[in-house]
Amino acid sequence: MNFAPYAAGSGISEIKCILGGFIIKGFLGVETFFIKSLTLPLAIGSGLAVGKEGPSVHVACSAGNTVARLFSRYERSHLKMREIVTASSAAGVAVAFGSPIGGVLFSIEEMNQTFSNRTMWRSFVCALVATFTLASMDPFRTGKLVLFNVSYDRDWHYFEMPAYILIGIFGGLYGAFVIKFNLQMAAFRRKHLANHGVAEAVILATLTAIFGYLNMFLRIDMTEMLAVLFRECEGGGDHEGLCQTSSQWRMVNSLLMATLLRTVFIILSYGCKVPAGIFVPSMAVGATFGRMVGILMKAMRTSYPSAPWFAACSPDAPCITPGTYAFLGAAAALGGVTRITVTVVVIMFELTGALTYLLPTMIVLLVTKAVSDQFGGRGIADHMIRFNGYPFLEQEDKEDPADPSFIEPIANVMKQDLVIMEATGVPLQRVAEIVQDTRYQGFPVVRSNEDRTIVGFVRTDELRFALDRARRIRNLSFNPVCSFQCTLAISADAHEALKRPEIVIPPPPSEGLSLNTGAGMGRRGSGVEIERIDFGQFIDETPLTVSPKMPLEIVMQLFRRMGPRVILVSNQGQLAGLVTVKDVLKHEAAEVVHRSRATPVTPSNPSYGRHSSDLNGGWERDWEAGAEDTGNGLEFILEESLEWARTKAAWAYGAAVESWRGIRGRNTREGAYDFELTEERS
Amino acid sequence: MNFAPYAAGSGISEIKCILGGFIIKGFLGVETFFIKSLTLPLAIGSGLAVGKEGPSVHVACSAGNTVARLFSRYERSHLKMREIVTASSAAGVAVAFGSPIGGVLFSIEEMNQTFSNRTMWRSFVCALVATFTLASMDPFRTGKLVLFNVSYDRDWHYFEMPAYILIGIFGGLYGAFVIKFNLQMAAFRRKHLANHGVAEAVILATLTAIFGYLNMFLRIDMTEMLAVLFRECEGGGDHEGLCQTSSQWRMVNSLLMATLLRTVFIILSYGCKVPAGIFVPSMAVGATFGRMVGILMKAMRTSYPSAPWFAACSPDAPCITPGTYAFLGAAAALGGVTRITVTVVVIMFELTGALTYLLPTMIVLLVTKAVSDQFGGRGIADHMIRFNGYPFLEQEDKEDPADPSFIEPIANVMKQDLVIMEATGVPLQRVAEIVQDTRYQGFPVVRSNEDRTIVGFVRTDELRFALDRARRIRNLSFNPVCSFQCTLAISADAHEALKRPEIVIPPPPSEGLSLNTGAGMGRRGSGVEIERIDFGQFIDETPLTVSPKMPLEIVMQLFRRMGPRVILVSNQGQLAGLVTVKDVLKHEAAEVVHRSRATPVTPSNPSYGRHSSDLNGGWERDWEAGAEDTGNGLEFILEESLEWARTKAAWAYGAAVESWRGIRGRNTREGAYDFELTEERS
Repeated sequence: MNFAPYAAGSGISEIKCILGGFIIKGFLGVETFFIKSLTLPLAIGSGLAVGKEGPSVHVACSAGNTVARLFSRYERSHLKMREIVTASSAAGVAVAFGSPIGGVLFSIEEMNQTFSNRTMWRSFVCALVATFTLASMDPFRTGKLVLFNVSYDRDWHYFEMPAYILIGIFGGLYGAFVIKFNLQMAAFRRKHLANHGVAEAVILATLTAIFGYLNMFLRIDMTEMLAVLFRECEGGGDHEGLCQTSSQWRMVNSLLMATLLRTVFIILSYGCKVPAGIFVPSMAVGATFGRMVGILMKAMRTSYPSAPWFAACSPDAPCITPGTYAFLGAAAALGGVTRITVTVVVIMFELTGALTYLLPTMIVLLVTKAVSDQFGGRGIADHMIRFNGYPFLEQEDKEDPADPSFIEPIANVMKQDLVIMEATGVPLQRVAEIVQDTRYQGFPVVRSNEDRTIVGFVRTDELRFALDRARRIRNLSFNPVCSFQCTLAISADAHEALKRPEIVIPPPPSEGLSLNTGAGMGRRGSGVEIERIDFGQFIDETPLTVSPKMPLEIVMQLFRRMGPRVILVSNQGQLAGLVTVKDVLKHEAAEVVHRSRATPVTPSNPSYGRHSSDLNGGWERDWEAGAEDTGNGLEFILEESLEWARTKAAWAYGAAVESWRGIRGRNTREGAYDFELTEERS
Repeated sequence: MNFAPYAAGSGISEIKCILGGFIIKGFLGVETFFIKSLTLPLAIGSGLAVGKEGPSVHVACSAGNTVARLFSRYERSHLKMREIVTASSAAGVAVAFGSPIGGVLFSIEEMNQTFSNRTMWRSFVCALVATFTLASMDPFRTGKLVLFNVSYDRDWHYFEMPAYILIGIFGGLYGAFVIKFNLQMAAFRRKHLANHGVAEAVILATLTAIFGYLNMFLRIDMTEMLAVLFRECEGGGDHEGLCQTSSQWRMVNSLLMATLLRTVFIILSYGCKVPAGIFVPSMAVGATFGRMVGILMKAMRTSYPSAPWFAACSPDAPCITPGTYAFLGAAAALGGVTRITVTVVVIMFELTGALTYLLPTMIVLLVTKAVSDQFGGRGIADHMIRFNGYPFLEQEDKEDPADPSFIEPIANVMKQDLVIMEATGVPLQRVAEIVQDTRYQGFPVVRSNEDRTIVGFVRTDELRFALDRARRIRNLSFNPVCSFQCTLAISADAHEALKRPEIVIPPPPSEGLSLNTGAGMGRRGSGVEIERIDFGQFIDETPLTVSPKMPLEIVMQLFRRMGPRVILVSNQGQLAGLVTVKDVLKHEAAEVVHRSRATPVTPSNPSYGRHSSDLNGGWERDWEAGAEDTGNGLEFILEESLEWARTKAAWAYGAAVESWRGIRGRNTREGAYDFELTEERS
């Protein structure tokens, strides 16, 4: 785990952040790829309530990233890398489910930040190749791609609609419930279990195995269970009396228990330090619940065969297919926890081929989404992003023009005390110091400290490169003066001027890099010819600039849609400030605190703050201005039980030590059991 | 036709433009809705080679637009209207094909300009409701939504891959061919048949009926034919001996003829003055071709049953299903002509439920897309947009940094001679004149004619509203002076200042609207107190501004992704120019001409120019700087035949007149047949 710390967990949240433009070093590296590929089967095999989809996506993205890095064309361009990673995520879902189009849609609905048909097409090709490879390997030995091939002979009836709506509501509630408590579990884990990852995983696996063994639906493999539950009763679907009317109450009981227990285990397991997905476990929960509803519907029909709402059934043929309810339940739970809709519909169809139930599936997901929206509307991946405090702008634009971010001008958000570069007359030494001493990613270039007319923006890495090059070719004792002269002039016929002439650096160091010696700054002080170095070719002369009055929301849209690293704020051509995504998020977090102090936090919208993450690369942690976690509910229970377990362990340890001492004949009991176990040990 | 001129044609191109931010008055109006709804069944019933999908989309969008206009919330916001129209297009496809998810994807892949999950979700709901309504009406009386329900029992084999690739290539070629010649047909139609829409439609219907009757596959209804071709041979699929080995060569012949003839009719019919879609006709062409390939494959297998590549087949069972080839052919042709991929896969799959053939479908579309990309890569809707000269920025970003639009600064593209508003001291009369005399959509507001510091941008309609209001409350003989003072000042704590105070207009007209009487402009000239009206509240103080050096490509991305109507070009705070989408397109068209003069036009990439459209609202026609249409190929043939028909008609008319005169006993023959038919008539 120390070798590739990012191999744990699902990885989808982090990949979303990376696609949003942030850098998490090593997250998509080759070590992560190998460790995650190796440990994923172990985690699945351990019987934990975890799935393989999230990790598959992570593995696929790591592979895509690693391969793409071999080509300098992609290595250089962040945009292209993001496209590759997006397309890889499609391949990940495609192989995890055997569902190529579902993969493409996943990459659009969940992953993609800036949709374009080109990215979609790349996802399509990736998913196709991945699925084709999978099909050639024929892993299920059935010749089919489809995991749970079912064909429902019977159509659905309008009187089943209330049951569908019930399943949809369950999906929404399940999603909200799991997200809420899983986040509390994550908070607990961070506080108390940060260094006991392995022990936690082992204990969870043991508990899962013990409880799981008691229930017939938890005992068997999750995928197999789904297949059993989806099947029609006719033609071999009668697994251990699942379809018998005689055992229906026993079955309802078992299914309900399975639903509840597995929900608890998902809450406890998702996010623990093994590769863990949440897709298939959620589907399993939904399927057990749905099947239960199905059996109940069937029982109702058996008890009241002549009720008017069953009139659509032919009287002697079986009318209700409980398997379809399991199918719809799986879709509802998956939709509830991830909050994706179209993708879920397509994945369900590609998994089963049950096209007849297209409309019920859509209706169920409609209800699920409507219920989910009452609880915040975001999926578990987005919640994890917020919980971990990753700098990520949520993708949805605000609609309401009365929203504060439409009224707030960017002037209130921007950074005002900036380290700037003057365009002329800065000693090289000073530039080097600035680059070395500050940790900014770049500096605005202005005409001079007094006349802050924006000349451009220079990135720190470009500047560092420029400095290195300058040092290499000349003796630094001269201490030359730097300038950032625009090499470009806009004329009526600016074509030629814009084909940036590559600056030829003459080999004799005495002559220098200076291109413009005729300017007024050519001589200085003691009559000695001062050399100049022109860094004009390294600056970006056209950074995005906005007026200080520009509403925050528009600036956020600019960040989201145009993807710049920085936006300059220019007041009538003069530099007024600078905004990055971090500034925006900092401001938002402060606003949340401000508002939560003014109004009480409602329970349905827990204002858990942005914590600094344990990721150690890419951004500072200076903006955790969010509200403190309140640690209620599950976290409290878990803390209590941890306390209880500690007491018991201490007691047991004390008893063991005592009896050991008794055996050794030395009774050194000093009263009560002491808790200084470490002393005893040493 | 004169009542609702936009009811003709497919409508998809125009809707794309509307979603791109342009206004075509009445295109989505209630008249269009009614006329198109009424005429669409007539057009389909006429037997023309036209489909109902494009028109369905248009009808659905008109309905959505009409309904949404009833609510002031949508009426006010262009953004919201676009969302509604996008979602409506999903409903259109959903009912046309009975394919809800296909509809959602269509709205994303083809229609949507700025993708967001919210829009996707709205499309989902629209498609669901539409499909549910359709299902309740049960139009096919089968209880199924699916148009051509097939289930293929047999799986595909790897040796069939070459045939799939062949079908994919056909799809690409078919698409390129239809697009090329259909555009020539459209050019011909515009030149010669503009006023003969009804005659054209009648002649085409007659021709289609005559030729169609001779071929067994053209004779029956298109949808029915597709169902017949998709079916497996076992179980009732043997329509008129389609599956008999004895009649296989006759069938191949008929299918080939049907493919060719229908292609010709599609080229001639699509775009004529009836509601016409191209989806189903294309599928029909692909299906006949595919079925032909399938029969040939089967014949090969019958002739060489022991060839090594047929080893995967069991020797005595049927191995090749020609119906699947028809299915794949339909997908290929549809993908080739529309250049959409994921949507086509989903639609095909929802139409038939043939999940087993998911991978072959994807492979076929991959090949189709690869072939299509050799011929320009854009679908027929985009070509029609270009052909009609609609102002529409293509959505794909340029990838190559060496592309001219990355090098070209916006300074070369922008409009420089602008009508500007000075922020202070403009007489009201002058403002009114400017608004009346110019046809611009808005004016940049600068500090003064000398100091062109950008203050904001004012839209003409806002200004007109402001003028009306000012006139209503005061006597205009005063001729007051207008100003556009910013009501906002940015301070360190700008919160309060930005809650724009609603300007209270005092009822006594003598006091005026003036808010700032302390400024230096308060008095003027002859000592008379000059009144001022402040229009500050009507200006947009934060228009998007860019530097003159900003590359054209970035500006285009700003237009595409942020959707402004205008971008100001600011040189160090001073107004340098103004860019609209039209300026960009004008520049591009000029570039095309420039380049096409330098390099010869390759036949695969005809540089047909941007013609002014016959739409009479929304934008000027002043930018048809494109190359002239060369009128080669089909257009030439058609012109020749028109000439021939004219000669013949004149001859026939002359003969008739002559004989009539002969009958009446007056032989006034003056030599040759004259062509001045109008004189004769009058």
